[in-house]
Amino acid sequence: MMNTLPDLSEQTAMDAPEDPTLDRLGSVAANRGLGALAQELYSLSDFVQQDMSVVEDELRQLDRPQALVGRAGRHLLRLGGKRLRPLCVALAARCGKGFNTAAMDFGVAVELVHNATLLHDDVVDLARERRGQATARLEYGNAAAIFAGDWLLIEALRRVRRAALPGLLERLLDTIDEMILAESLPLEHRGRLDVDRSVYFRIAEGKTAALFRYALYSGGRAGQLTEPQCQALAEYGAHLGVAFQVVDDLLDLAGDAARTGKALFTDLKEGMVTYPLILIFEQDPALGRQIADWLAGSDDLQLPDEVLHRVRVAAEASGAEQRCRELAVERAHHAIGCLEALPQSRARSALEAVAHATAHRRR
Amino acid sequence: MMNTLPDLSEQTAMDAPEDPTLDRLGSVAANRGLGALAQELYSLSDFVQQDMSVVEDELRQLDRPQALVGRAGRHLLRLGGKRLRPLCVALAARCGKGFNTAAMDFGVAVELVHNATLLHDDVVDLARERRGQATARLEYGNAAAIFAGDWLLIEALRRVRRAALPGLLERLLDTIDEMILAESLPLEHRGRLDVDRSVYFRIAEGKTAALFRYALYSGGRAGQLTEPQCQALAEYGAHLGVAFQVVDDLLDLAGDAARTGKALFTDLKEGMVTYPLILIFEQDPALGRQIADWLAGSDDLQLPDEVLHRVRVAAEASGAEQRCRELAVERAHHAIGCLEALPQSRARSALEAVAHATAHRRR
Repeated sequence: MMNTLPDLSEQTAMDAPEDPTLDRLGSVAANRGLGALAQELYSLSDFVQQDMSVVEDELRQLDRPQALVGRAGRHLLRLGGKRLRPLCVALAARCGKGFNTAAMDFGVAVELVHNATLLHDDVVDLARERRGQATARLEYGNAAAIFAGDWLLIEALRRVRRAALPGLLERLLDTIDEMILAESLPLEHRGRLDVDRSVYFRIAEGKTAALFRYALYSGGRAGQLTEPQCQALAEYGAHLGVAFQVVDDLLDLAGDAARTGKALFTDLKEGMVTYPLILIFEQDPALGRQIADWLAGSDDLQLPDEVLHRVRVAAEASGAEQRCRELAVERAHHAIGCLEALPQSRARSALEAVAHATAHRRR
Repeated sequence: MMNTLPDLSEQTAMDAPEDPTLDRLGSVAANRGLGALAQELYSLSDFVQQDMSVVEDELRQLDRPQALVGRAGRHLLRLGGKRLRPLCVALAARCGKGFNTAAMDFGVAVELVHNATLLHDDVVDLARERRGQATARLEYGNAAAIFAGDWLLIEALRRVRRAALPGLLERLLDTIDEMILAESLPLEHRGRLDVDRSVYFRIAEGKTAALFRYALYSGGRAGQLTEPQCQALAEYGAHLGVAFQVVDDLLDLAGDAARTGKALFTDLKEGMVTYPLILIFEQDPALGRQIADWLAGSDDLQLPDEVLHRVRVAAEASGAEQRCRELAVERAHHAIGCLEALPQSRARSALEAVAHATAHRRR
């Protein structure tokens, strides 16, 4: 497993956990002065290290020799990523009777579905960079990237089919359908920038939370928890997913506004109004209209500096960052509340820690 | 059901069948002076009319309100097409105990998978026209077209899941996987034009024949035929699919060489060397190298007139058209031979007629 964030190595000198997800979440917690939480996350490394490396081995062995589509599919998988969804599967399974081959299949499947959507998204957005490297579409062409996404999707469905737990395949088909529907909602609003909170949350719930919900539910089922317990885990996943997406939006905007505004431009052009942007446009209602007019009338591939400046000013005045964090923290608390349906266990504590760390993460 | 080929209405004055697939195949046969075959095909119209309109109703009802992706998905479906794959499902089922809800689900599923691949292919090829209309990607954008393809794929899998016949879902997952692999093979050869027959047939078998194979097999299973009988139908489908693809290639090239050579250019640029082109490059080996060099060195979006001229000359000299037809007819005979595993029936005769007409079709 690779750690693509070199600066983390300094922060984690206090301990040497080998699981990069927990490593990262732990360092986030340490960084925020959340000492106990950081300790908890680091102590979890051993706990799920084995499960995660089983998933990682499976992902690494995924092969399709001599085909461009195979290379395109593996390209993204091998760049790593947080593997947060398989981690959720493993921890949910460990809330029950433990990690087993079904949990492994679900863990691999959710990561494959996630990567499939990224491959297709990158073609849609004509993205050039992902996880710090050239995107698969840039490296192997749009065709290979689209087919690779199709391939990973089919492979994910096969894994879940193989696990042969009643209802789980249908649920994954429904989940993917929900994701596609949500991905397409912003297209409806393209060029309008009039997305309100209810639309935003529908998108976040479908695009991001649905797969977290599936990860937690399937893990619970693999661990032979009761149906109400699995539903509670799914509920946890739904809240975690929204918290994750809101923080993602915030980090994207913060990283972007500080630099060129290119990703911001792409999002807006695609009708993708993120949560911090909703807060910003509420603060400065004319700004949204101005940007919409400007996007409609210009062929430039970048927002003008004065618009970026107004975005920054409105972001400051609206307290967008703090309000996004508050929302994420609130969702994390809801998520943790859902876990009360489960017996106390090390895995349950780990899920609590994951929720906290997700709301507080800085990257 | 719509007939998008107005010139057919003149040719079919002898009868007024309502099923456009058989109508078209029948008119092909009539056109070729194959009187008995034409009569047979026309007499089949009543026979499968009901089955096909059940499938068509299902396809028409496929809905996803207020979402661009739904419109993009329906766009292509509503433009009709030959519906040859669902026809195969229906006839295979009628070789057994008849058309039922399982056959309906399989019929809808194969048409959805076919349309899903077309949606993705059109994005890959930046195609502007399909079935005589603007492509979904042009009408609704690449994003909506990609997501619509994903949606139709998921919807197809759901239908097959619902039919709940053992092994059929796994088989569709394998089939789609085979299609993706075959679709990506030409990408390997991009810019080389050194595709030989064995590669060509691997591509045709995966890209086209695999789904025909599935259509026939699933129809047989729905009709409760024995496993060897279903395997024989699958074998028929494999031969039919290759015959269909070779004729498709021929019609594309003939239609294209007579006009601008634009589709030919696109195929070559994508490394897609079709069967008639293999024959043409065998006739004039220097031509393939010249085109490859020219494609690598030029930014033009069209082949020069002198190259097109040489293609036409080599096509003539190699007897490409006749040899493609011969191959298709041979495959049609192989297909028909496979049907000997089945008892004589009206449906079996219909499949024989479909094989003949596929080899002889003019559009």
